[in-house]
Amino acid sequence: MSAIGATESGGVHREAADPADAATKQWLREWLQQGGFEVRVDRIGNLFGLLTWTPGAPYVLLGSHLDSQPAGGRFDGAYGVLAAAHTAARLRDRFRGADAPPPLNIAVVNWFNEEGSRFQPSMMGSAVFTGKLDPDTALDTCDAGGTSVRAALTDIGFAGTDECPELASYAEIHVEQGSFLEQEGRTIGLVESNWAARKYRVSVHGEQSHTGSTPMTQRRDALYGAAKIVTAVRELADEFAEGVLHTSVGQLTVLPNSPVVVAREAQLHLDLRSADLDVLRTADTRLHEVFAQVRERAGVAVSLGTAHAWDIEPYQPAGVRLAEAAVEELGLPHRRMLTLAGHDSTNMKDVVPTVMLFVPSAGGVAHNEFEHTDDADMLAGVDVLTDVADRLCHGEGQP
Amino acid sequence: MSAIGATESGGVHREAADPADAATKQWLREWLQQGGFEVRVDRIGNLFGLLTWTPGAPYVLLGSHLDSQPAGGRFDGAYGVLAAAHTAARLRDRFRGADAPPPLNIAVVNWFNEEGSRFQPSMMGSAVFTGKLDPDTALDTCDAGGTSVRAALTDIGFAGTDECPELASYAEIHVEQGSFLEQEGRTIGLVESNWAARKYRVSVHGEQSHTGSTPMTQRRDALYGAAKIVTAVRELADEFAEGVLHTSVGQLTVLPNSPVVVAREAQLHLDLRSADLDVLRTADTRLHEVFAQVRERAGVAVSLGTAHAWDIEPYQPAGVRLAEAAVEELGLPHRRMLTLAGHDSTNMKDVVPTVMLFVPSAGGVAHNEFEHTDDADMLAGVDVLTDVADRLCHGEGQP
Repeated sequence: MSAIGATESGGVHREAADPADAATKQWLREWLQQGGFEVRVDRIGNLFGLLTWTPGAPYVLLGSHLDSQPAGGRFDGAYGVLAAAHTAARLRDRFRGADAPPPLNIAVVNWFNEEGSRFQPSMMGSAVFTGKLDPDTALDTCDAGGTSVRAALTDIGFAGTDECPELASYAEIHVEQGSFLEQEGRTIGLVESNWAARKYRVSVHGEQSHTGSTPMTQRRDALYGAAKIVTAVRELADEFAEGVLHTSVGQLTVLPNSPVVVAREAQLHLDLRSADLDVLRTADTRLHEVFAQVRERAGVAVSLGTAHAWDIEPYQPAGVRLAEAAVEELGLPHRRMLTLAGHDSTNMKDVVPTVMLFVPSAGGVAHNEFEHTDDADMLAGVDVLTDVADRLCHGEGQP
Repeated sequence: MSAIGATESGGVHREAADPADAATKQWLREWLQQGGFEVRVDRIGNLFGLLTWTPGAPYVLLGSHLDSQPAGGRFDGAYGVLAAAHTAARLRDRFRGADAPPPLNIAVVNWFNEEGSRFQPSMMGSAVFTGKLDPDTALDTCDAGGTSVRAALTDIGFAGTDECPELASYAEIHVEQGSFLEQEGRTIGLVESNWAARKYRVSVHGEQSHTGSTPMTQRRDALYGAAKIVTAVRELADEFAEGVLHTSVGQLTVLPNSPVVVAREAQLHLDLRSADLDVLRTADTRLHEVFAQVRERAGVAVSLGTAHAWDIEPYQPAGVRLAEAAVEELGLPHRRMLTLAGHDSTNMKDVVPTVMLFVPSAGGVAHNEFEHTDDADMLAGVDVLTDVADRLCHGEGQP
């Protein structure tokens, strides 16, 4: 899988519906077809593989995403899809000789556009699946070059028309993207809840002028305004105890971005995350104070909208207990924990019982070509997911 | 001319060797051919039109540039080329019936890539012409998309092979891009000298990571480092008296520029200008202090190179006096002044006697679609340029 969209430094570059992402979808479709799965593609490009041993019964869905960040890691998402596929294949073989099939069927999913680098918001496929995002809004979303999701999916042959399967539950395994497991020498993380996130899209409007000749007092420099926001956002995190608030600006686009032109506009994507909603509320208030200062100091207009937001919502405790029982039976060192990053399971847990599992990430390196997880940990993760999926297929973990 | 590459708001968008820039070159070539000029294109795409009444004698060259900034003004550069072309045509008609031709010939030029928005450095065509920039270095320069100057010029049919004319002198007229003339109600500015400029290319190197999950203390955020540089550069200007130092960052490119990825790299183009070299030296020292602080605070590496630099070099006093005599004869209100912006004449004055003239810019608006100069001022400018060129063709203004 990591050969598709491989980068020189050992990572992968597979943005939603780009040629490499399309190649992973084709590869997975063939793999599923050869394994006896019924393949379905829905209108937002989610790719499902179904194994039906109890016709008419709902499905336990396992999956994650095969797209990556630009110059991203090979494990983020891809490990979860491959683990899901192999888990389903193991259960297929396990149940083939069984006296009675389990009451629930199993399915695998590769969610469309989890990463959100090309099309925002992230976690798009699962957001449409769960009804959190209108399908047409998602399909009409354009990338920086003006290509819509609709056109991009049509172009790669993954604008599907299939019905989505009816679900009983969902399970996902993912690399931790943090270093708690590694530091404590544990193999499996049982995710109890997620950090909340507030993502803002901020526009700074100034006036285009000449970098050389325009008097400083007359400038309304959008890039200067944006830079003041970037620094203030970073320093906002220091107003709280360490680890309480994560802040960032990862994307900044400058117009017209010419060496000798004072920028007329800057667009940035601002990200606040915390496990404490009060902290996010305070941070939001401070952010508006920063914007007021920037307007005055840089002579620019600042407008903002919410790009994406999610609250702290626990994963179903029954699912955590089910996974805990599976891990203990396998004798693997584990801990309960939070996820700081968003995952497709963040959407899924709001509509069906959901289990979220982590395996360790070396040094917590994430969204980076040097991301790494050991083979032994990945294989242990598949064992756990298999046991979890078996239990889910037998109706455990329901509230 | 302003119909070529016109923008909705009344400006033009013609970056070096883009389709609109190519169209202006084709238009000018035809206009010159129809007017009896001998057209030449050199290897860096400079377009000359020669009128030879004294075979073997050198040329008085008049010109400016037809390229623009992205969403730039319609007068910047284009006015100077059109004024040069009409001046040469007037002199052609004037000298046609004369008893003896003037001792020096006349030529018109449209310099390649004065603006430098697509390919750096700016003033590229005149820099190659004057030997300040190696032709192959210029031709190998690539835009952000990886297209070289060589490929771009070949593509539009303006990679020429013609010899450049031998020159006796150069004259250029340009909109002021400042508001001194307008504020004082004067029509013509006689440029005595230029501000010095120091342009730096700065790279900030951090480490790509996850905006959500990476602990703040572990981040090495290239965009945060770049933003601290942008704000410090702007605020550096405030350490001096008003109008003494102009500073800016107009271009900032972030990698990978994904909403949920801490940037691994940021590249910016930094511009310092002053009429006082001591101020630039102090500013350069302060800049290095800022870089050291940024390295420490943001945990990033900062490297810089000089992208372009020019000192304060006076235009030849004989040329200023010649132009002053012409303006006074025409009875136009005028003043001696400095140019804050760089022009092709900034290069030319270092190799031949050079006259630089300004006409007013409404409100000093520059590098902006709303740039404006009144028709009456433009026509007065052509009258002055005609008189200046006539004198130059008769050998005046030589040291």
